[in-house]
Parts: sequence; C-alpha cells; structure tokens
Amino acid sequence: MVNWESKLSDYARRVEPSAIFALLDMPRAPDTINLGPGEPDPALFPVGRIAQIIANELTDSGRARTALQYTVNAGLPPLRERLSALHRSRGLPSSKDNVLVTSGSQQAIDLVVSAFVQPGSRVAVQSPTYPGAMGILKAHGAAIVTLDDAFREAPREFAVIYVTPTFSNPSGETLDIAMRRRVLDLARGSGAILLEDDPYEAISFEDATPSTIQSLDAKNGIEQSQTLYTSTFSKSLTPGFRVGWLHGPSSIIRKLTLLKQSEDMQAGTLSQLVAAEAMQFVYSEHVPRLREEYRRRRDAMLGALERHFGGQAKWTRPAGGFFVWMTLPEHVDAVALLRVAALQGVTFVPGTACSHRGEYKNCLRLSYSTNPAATLEEAICRLGSAFRSFQKLTAGSR
Amino acid sequence: MVNWESKLSDYARRVEPSAIFALLDMPRAPDTINLGPGEPDPALFPVGRIAQIIANELTDSGRARTALQYTVNAGLPPLRERLSALHRSRGLPSSKDNVLVTSGSQQAIDLVVSAFVQPGSRVAVQSPTYPGAMGILKAHGAAIVTLDDAFREAPREFAVIYVTPTFSNPSGETLDIAMRRRVLDLARGSGAILLEDDPYEAISFEDATPSTIQSLDAKNGIEQSQTLYTSTFSKSLTPGFRVGWLHGPSSIIRKLTLLKQSEDMQAGTLSQLVAAEAMQFVYSEHVPRLREEYRRRRDAMLGALERHFGGQAKWTRPAGGFFVWMTLPEHVDAVALLRVAALQGVTFVPGTACSHRGEYKNCLRLSYSTNPAATLEEAICRLGSAFRSFQKLTAGSR
Repeated sequence: MVNWESKLSDYARRVEPSAIFALLDMPRAPDTINLGPGEPDPALFPVGRIAQIIANELTDSGRARTALQYTVNAGLPPLRERLSALHRSRGLPSSKDNVLVTSGSQQAIDLVVSAFVQPGSRVAVQSPTYPGAMGILKAHGAAIVTLDDAFREAPREFAVIYVTPTFSNPSGETLDIAMRRRVLDLARGSGAILLEDDPYEAISFEDATPSTIQSLDAKNGIEQSQTLYTSTFSKSLTPGFRVGWLHGPSSIIRKLTLLKQSEDMQAGTLSQLVAAEAMQFVYSEHVPRLREEYRRRRDAMLGALERHFGGQAKWTRPAGGFFVWMTLPEHVDAVALLRVAALQGVTFVPGTACSHRGEYKNCLRLSYSTNPAATLEEAICRLGSAFRSFQKLTAGSR
Repeated sequence: MVNWESKLSDYARRVEPSAIFALLDMPRAPDTINLGPGEPDPALFPVGRIAQIIANELTDSGRARTALQYTVNAGLPPLRERLSALHRSRGLPSSKDNVLVTSGSQQAIDLVVSAFVQPGSRVAVQSPTYPGAMGILKAHGAAIVTLDDAFREAPREFAVIYVTPTFSNPSGETLDIAMRRRVLDLARGSGAILLEDDPYEAISFEDATPSTIQSLDAKNGIEQSQTLYTSTFSKSLTPGFRVGWLHGPSSIIRKLTLLKQSEDMQAGTLSQLVAAEAMQFVYSEHVPRLREEYRRRRDAMLGALERHFGGQAKWTRPAGGFFVWMTLPEHVDAVALLRVAALQGVTFVPGTACSHRGEYKNCLRLSYSTNPAATLEEAICRLGSAFRSFQKLTAGSR
C-alpha cells in the first residue's frame, strides 16, 4: 500500500482529532449522564410541523421538483429573503445578497477562515473559546492570540478576530456593549475581518441581549462593515438539516459563495426549504418554548451546583445558550476528575479542550441542554461526589 | 470599509468564478433550450416514494429524533452499511469503515484534494476534464498535467491522479480495461492517490461497464489499495439532498473524516436517511427507468446530430451518463458560436471550460439529461442553423 501519510498536505497534517473525541472511549458507569455535548434536546424538536412542511412541499409536483433539485450556490432565494428580513427586523440594513446559506455554522466559520487565514496569519479569539473553531484555526495554521493579549499589544495587526459574544460556548458568558465596542475598535484598528459567531442567540433567558457587533459596525450600512455574522438553525430548529448562514457585505458574500461552490456546491435544497417555511413559526412560537425549557434546565443546574459545590468552586450564570463554565480549585486536574466522574456516572468537557495553549486545567464545560431538570440535578450530585472522591484520592499527593 | 480583497488567503485568491457561470448573462432568445447543465431531469425524480420515506421516518417520534439530530461525522451508520454492501455486491471487500458520506461528490473531490494537494503538487487529469474538479485543483494550487503527458513523462511523480473513467463529464467516453490498468500502473509507479470519480455509473446504457479502477486496485484487499472512489445519489436519486460518498482504505477514510468534521461536521441526517432507505429501490427499480429514458434522449441527440451535422463535425457516442462531446472544424470558436446560438435559442458549454490550458476551442459539451427527446431534436436543429449562420458570418474573415 502507498504510504499515504507521507503524502498529506500541510493542511491535512494540522487537522487533528478533537480532544473531546479522544475521551469518548473512557470507561464509564452504564447509566452515565453526559453533560458534554452542545446539542439541543431532540425531544424539543417540532417534529409534527416539520413533517407537515415537507408533506406540503412534496405533494405539489412542481414544488417537489424544486425541493429536490440543485439550487443556486448562495442558497435558496426565499430562505435568503427571509433571513435578510430577520436582520432588517433587528434594525440592520440587509438584502438577500448579504446572505450566504451554509451547511451549518461550522462551515460558515471554515469558509471565513479559509478565505482570510493562512499559515502564520494572526487571529484573536476569546479565551476560552469554542473547540470546533479552534480546530479550524489550527488546521489553517493561524497564530492564535487571546483577546486580552490582543488588547495589550501594539501594533495590533490581525487577519481575523473570532468571537462568540452572546451566551458563549464554552463560557456561557455574554460580552457587554462596552466590550463589544472594544472588540470592534480592535478590528477597525487592525483592519481585521471580525467573525461574530452567534449560534445560541435564539436561546435567551432575559428580556434584552446586547446588540450584535455587526449592528454596531453597520451603522453606516452593511456594505461598509467588516463584520461577518454567522448563526444557524441547529439550536432553534434542528441540527440534522445542516442549515446555517453568513450575513455581511455583499462583496465578501459573493467571494465566499465561490468558495462554497467549489467546496460543496450548496446546502441541501429541501433542508433550506424547511428552514424557510419554519421561519414563519420558529421565532414567534417555537423559540419561546425552547427558552422556557432551557431556562428551567439552567436553573436546575445552577441550583444543584449551589447545593453540591457552594463555597468550593465558581461557575458562570449564563443568560442564554447551553453551557455553564465551572472553575474548581487550582490543584484540580479536570481530565483526572473526568476519569473518576465517568466511573460514577457523569461526564463533561474538560476546560483544556477550549484553550489553544492548554489553559483551564481546573475548569469544566457543563451542558444543560440535552437532559431534563431532574437528570441534571442527579448529574451534579454525582459530580459533587466524584469531586469529593477526587479530593480524597489526591489529598495525599498535595 | 476594510480592504478585504487585500486580506484574502492565497487559496481564496485562486478560487475564481467558473467559465460556465460567466456565460449566464449572455443575451438569448426567450425560449432558449439549455444543453449546458449536467443536471438530472426533475420530472424523473421518484417524488412519491421519497415523500413516503420521510413521512414514515417522521411519524415515529423515536425515529424522527434520530432523523433530525446530529449524527456521526463519517455518516449515518445504516447508510454506510448499505453503501459498503453495494460495493461488496460488486465484488469488492468493504465494511462501513471504508465509507465516508459526503455532502455530494463535489465535497468528496474537495476533501481528497485538500488532504493531498498543496501549491505545486503535481496532479494528472484526463483531458478534457470536469470543470468543477479543475476549479478545486486550481484553488489548491495544483500543477495540472494531462494523463497523456503523464504517460510520456519520466520520472512520473504525482500527488493525485484524478479520473472519471466511466461516462466521463464532459467527453461522455469510457476508458477501457487496458487504459484503466495503465492509469492504475501510473498511480502505483508514482505513489499517487488515485481519485476515481464515478457520479454517472448508474446511468449506463449497455449491459457491461468495465470494472472500476478501485476494484482492479483492491485485488489484495481494499486496505492495501491506493484508490479512493467517489459516487453520489445526485444522478440516481436527486441532487438536492447533497449525499455522496467516498470509498477507500479505512485509514485514509478516518483521516478524511477528521477533515469533514472540521469543515462542516456531517452531511444532512434526514438526507442520509432518505438515501439509505431509497437504496432498497433505487438500483433495482428506479435506475432501470432512468437508463431507458436517458438512453432515449441520447439516441434522439445522436440522431439529430447526424441529420444536422453529418460530415461536418465529430461527436462521441456515450455508453452512459449525460453528455455528448462534439468537435467542430478547427476554425470554429465555440464561445463565438455560443453567442450566435443563444440568440437562436440554444446554449451549451464551450470546450475551453473543460481544459486547464484553454484547449478545445472548437468543442462543445452537449447535455441530453434535462430535456425530453423532442426538445433535444429541436435544440440540435437550432444548433445546426446557428452553425450555418456562424459559418457565413466568419467566411469573410477566413
């Protein structure tokens, strides 16, 4: 057989298994509760309405042919129209030419990074940051700098600034308006493309969320802005359809559309059609239910953390999204704790998976999205007992 | 606004609009018949059966949750199982670990090129070749060599050899077994990855098609082979689902799965489920109907070419697929002819779009897939009259 590994491109060499996946084979109790994945709960999918939309589209033979055929590379025109209307309803100037439909927001991030990052390009990110984005940045050879370091540095020169300012994965935190302006100023000062990743925006638990950075940037019109905004239907509707989108200046959108065309032609046509039709009820009817249920789960997790870890650890109080970020005492190694916890029936993502330089050894990302409140309470109870076992186990070595 | 064009990566700079798209704005008669696109005819989609499959999946709430949720990056396990069974039924050893489900075969080509080609890598291709693959190769900076030149050369050193040996897009031709062995020998001699692109395999008009190159290569087992095979459901079922696949050694498939994960996570889940279910009737019941209808169309086009161009041009006689490749007298510029033809109500892809070095100026790719036989006859009649107008117009300048 050919020695294919010796033939890999530099890009392919830099693509590595995610740290999260490496943990999947760890021994665990049979009924382990997994607080790892950032997935929506499938029990909350609006299955009946989706089935009805598809049945309607496929009953009419003319519509069915459109639904199953190729469509334009930038995405199904009615979906792009409705997405631009969504942005207009939030006060942004927008037309369908400002929208590129992507195969999930993972692809949106990959397209922007492919377009603007190459080996050695400097990219600033929040710390901690989304592991999936970090994987993409590493694959493209980015020189990653934390935002804090970026603010301190002079001169400030970046190809891309990547932020998840709202209900961040993994921290659950939301940047306030002052910090959003500071990030925008950094982008403007360095001429960087600012990639605003906003997959959790629909899952908000409070009345007001700060304006998107893109809307701060687009005060003089979207065409003059340097922010590319991405979101997805993966949390608000379902992830299996793989429909996300990019919103930004039409000139950049046109270029990114060429990349998308070269890489996979287009997002699925029927998926886009379902998303377009579902937009008529997703934000008005479905998302309010999701918010209520996910807030209940967040509250259950926060309450259980208080009961089992009060005074011994810190954690964030997310105003939306799927994640709580927990910080244990400094001597705790979260990967070692995970091995103990898995045997006691609970798993999570260790903090180091969310840093490009191995920080957050004593931190945990805890997801409250996939389990109902009672299960989350049991999970945190198990985590508390795993933590106490771990403390005993390591007491001798300290 | 930021000067984003100056910030583009080398990769993004190399991604250019396809020559085919540049022609879309050409003035044309209102009822123009387009022989350009390599699309299946949506009138032939098995809409009722697809609707039934989806209705079944979404009626059961457990199945619906699976259908709409994330799935594993390599693809839905039942689909990979059935695809590996398909390869086994054709005499190849295969398990689901040999299969990566992609978002169409365009992505399969892009993944393989991303993995094994970087600026300066030498890649051998048939000439003419599929414009979409050439776009990918150019984007990744490949040094493209025609197979003919590659056979003549010594030493032979290639990163990738890309071929569409069966019912080629654009030529409609099929490599015979001797030529397949020669291509395989070239790959073995140069240690190259051999990418066998086989999107049209189901659309065959004759009883026997030569064995795939992968099956010649995998005589000692798929794990020892250096061929990656890709095909798609875009022609045999529908393109809108964006489901294709790669089949090859499990070690390479694992690496390509990591690239896929980084780039867009996975192909659409419901789309994969439909493909998996549809495999129970696609090859046994649906494909025979497609073959019959597309053969009728091929015959209509070949007959009309004989009537309108007999003695004045040459063309291929495809044993399957969607395309006839036509060669006009050497002085004819197909792009100039296209301008005349569009005004007379027929369009096609000029041959230069299918060459990396501007060859085939006097050639045309004619697709018979999207129009019924009578329309094709009218189209070739118009093309004949456009050709005669063109000959008169240019007679003075010769």
